[in-house]
Formats: sequence, C-alpha cells, structure tokens
Amino acid sequence: MSGQPVARGRFITFEGGEGSGKSTQGRLLAERLAGAGITCRLTREPGGSPGAEAVRRLLLEERQPFHPLAESLLFAAARADHVKTLIEPALAAGEWVICDRFIDSTRAYQGAGRTVAASVIDQLETLAIGACRPDLTIILDLDPRLGLTRADARRGASGAADRFEGETLAFHERIRAAFRAIAAAEPARCLLLDATADKAAVSDRIAARVSDAFGITPGSGAAP
Amino acid sequence: MSGQPVARGRFITFEGGEGSGKSTQGRLLAERLAGAGITCRLTREPGGSPGAEAVRRLLLEERQPFHPLAESLLFAAARADHVKTLIEPALAAGEWVICDRFIDSTRAYQGAGRTVAASVIDQLETLAIGACRPDLTIILDLDPRLGLTRADARRGASGAADRFEGETLAFHERIRAAFRAIAAAEPARCLLLDATADKAAVSDRIAARVSDAFGITPGSGAAP
Repeated sequence: MSGQPVARGRFITFEGGEGSGKSTQGRLLAERLAGAGITCRLTREPGGSPGAEAVRRLLLEERQPFHPLAESLLFAAARADHVKTLIEPALAAGEWVICDRFIDSTRAYQGAGRTVAASVIDQLETLAIGACRPDLTIILDLDPRLGLTRADARRGASGAADRFEGETLAFHERIRAAFRAIAAAEPARCLLLDATADKAAVSDRIAARVSDAFGITPGSGAAP
Repeated sequence: MSGQPVARGRFITFEGGEGSGKSTQGRLLAERLAGAGITCRLTREPGGSPGAEAVRRLLLEERQPFHPLAESLLFAAARADHVKTLIEPALAAGEWVICDRFIDSTRAYQGAGRTVAASVIDQLETLAIGACRPDLTIILDLDPRLGLTRADARRGASGAADRFEGETLAFHERIRAAFRAIAAAEPARCLLLDATADKAAVSDRIAARVSDAFGITPGSGAAP
C-alpha cells in the first residue's frame, strides 16, 4: 500500500428518454477513456448493485401498479443501495463511474411525468445520494415519438413495454421538457445533445466536454 | 347518497417485537368493536395494499441484503402505498382501521436496530404518511428471548427466519428499548402493555383504553 491518498474518481451520468442512446454513448465513452488509461465502472439505474437490481425487477418486470409517491420511494431505495454499496466506494477508490440514468430521471419521470411535488423529489434525492452528485451529466434529447419507436424495435415483437414505455405520448413529452429544463438550469453540470445526430459525432462532442471538464483527453472514437 | 358528512374513522396500530401477540390482539379488538357495531379494516405492514405486499415479499421473503438506508426507504415505499390506497380512503369513508405494525416499527427496527439516523427516520415518516397518524397505538412489551422462542414455534421446523427474526439478541433488545421509549415519550397516543399477561386480560385493558379514548365501549371479550 502506498501512503499517497487516491484521487477521487469522476462521476458521469447519461440521461434522456426511451431509445435516446444513453447506453451506447456511455459504453463508447468508457472505451475512449480506457484508451486514455482510465478505467471506468459502467453501471445503470434502477439497479447496479444486487439490492438495487432486486428493486429494479419489482419496478420494471412486475405489472404491479404503485402509488406515484411509493414509486418515487422505490427508486430512491434502489439509488441509496447503489450509491452506498457501489458508486461511492468506487469513486473513493479512484475509479471513474459512468451511470445510465440517475437523479435527473427521477426528476423527469416521477416529478414531471407522475407530477410528484418537487419538494418531495428534492428531499428523496438528498436522502438517497447525500453528497454523491454527478460531476458531469450528458442529456440526450430526442422527440419521444422517435425514441419510443426505437425502443419498440430494440425490444422486438416478444418484449412487453415496461412501466414507463407504455405511458402516453403526453407523459413522454413532459419527460423530454423536464430534461431540457434541467440542462438549461444547470449548464455547469449538464450537456444537452441532439440524439438524432450521427453516433460518432455525438461521441466526439461528449469526449470534448470530458476533456474540457477534467483535463483528460479520451482516446479517439473510431466507430466500430 | 346522504348529504351528511361521514365521521372519519379511528386509526389504531399494534406494535411490539417478534411473537408479542400483535396480530391476535388486533383481531380480538376488531371482534369486540364489531360487537359494538363498528366495522374495522384489519391490515398489516409491511403490506396491506397490493403494491405494498409486493414490497413485503422483497423485504421478508428474499434473502437479498440491502443497505440500512435502502431498507428504510423500502419500508417507507410500502407504507406510502398502503396509506394512500387503503388506510386513508378507509378512514375518510368512516371505517376504523387496525394495523399490525406501522411507524413505530420503523423507528424501532431501522432507527434503533439498524442505527439509521433519527432525522432520516423522521423525514421518511412524514413523507410516507403525511397527516395520517395513528389515534391510538398499543405497544406489547416482551422480553425478546421469549418473543423469539414464540416466533420460532409458530413458524415450525420448516420456516426460515426472516430478515429480522434472524438478527442478534442485542438487536432485538434495542428494538424492545425503543418501543418502551416511544411509549414513555408519547403517553397520549401509546399504551404499553405486558405481553406475558393473560390474553383475555390484555384484551380487556385494550378495550378499556379504546373506551376512554373514543367514548365507545367495545363488546365483551369472552375468550374463545
């Protein structure tokens, strides 16, 4: 063991509606950072830790409806488990963490979508994450009509729509507006990108922002 | 439909450690109240509503460990669903509700047992129940060594101990002390009773308190 303290890792989140390319862009960024010698932990919400994945199954695989307040508390429970047992220890050990959905999805889906009061969403956010806030958030903006079509295609004929995919277009329009409002309100943390742009071009924009923010130049993103 | 507003029902909770007789005494009180013409909704936590019962299965039947904060949020999620979809509508419609475990179990098990900060427990309590506080709480006090032996016997040889039954004796001693402290701090709401006393005598003490508190005399409790 070295006596040197380990520099805390960076915490980057990807946000956006259904089918906006969050997972793909998160993976591409992790590959580019690996090219710069930085190991990333790729994770997702709801889920990421064993306890949170159990809550994910309850939320996304079961058909059981929940009161919107209860739904918000379930997402907060999954998040608390994920933050305390995976994200926070990884960051403290110097690893970078890239997470597919985080606090902004709760603000958008439960806050704007289910119309749970902002004061409740704020309290649950602070309870669940404490000081573990993202250093950078990429928000992928997409017309929900296009996003839902992409999500349908990805799922194939046999896959059932989850708790949110099956919601109305008006619901998904509120989600999109909420993500755009978050990006406008917190420009220091958030980068809003057009998710219809070429995949490699989006990845380049993300790499440039990471370079600006953290002084590290991710490797080139030669598309596979 | 009558133009008369319906008088709000009364909300009575039963609390105590494992094997303290909460379910039995709740059922006996409901029978006695039925004798006085009062219909009670008998329910339990975690659970009581379909959504909350799904969370109960996750909490009590699955072996998955959760971070104590996540566990507290899961109980709050189940409680919010139960309050919003069952307890509050029943009370508003004039029904009485008798619930086996409620907020004091969270204070005792997650607060004293898991040592989650009281400020967190308080916040979650207010989020989950709003103004839906019990009018009366019966706390059945029992040495945990005796209570756990009773719970073991009830479960039989084949039943596995749940998330809490399998905890250390020191954990269950903290639970008992927490319940006693709640009763001492809130005497207007809480009645602490010795759970080793004769079942019919305990039921009589509860009926007397209900009579004092609500001006209604429950029927006699001729033991079956």
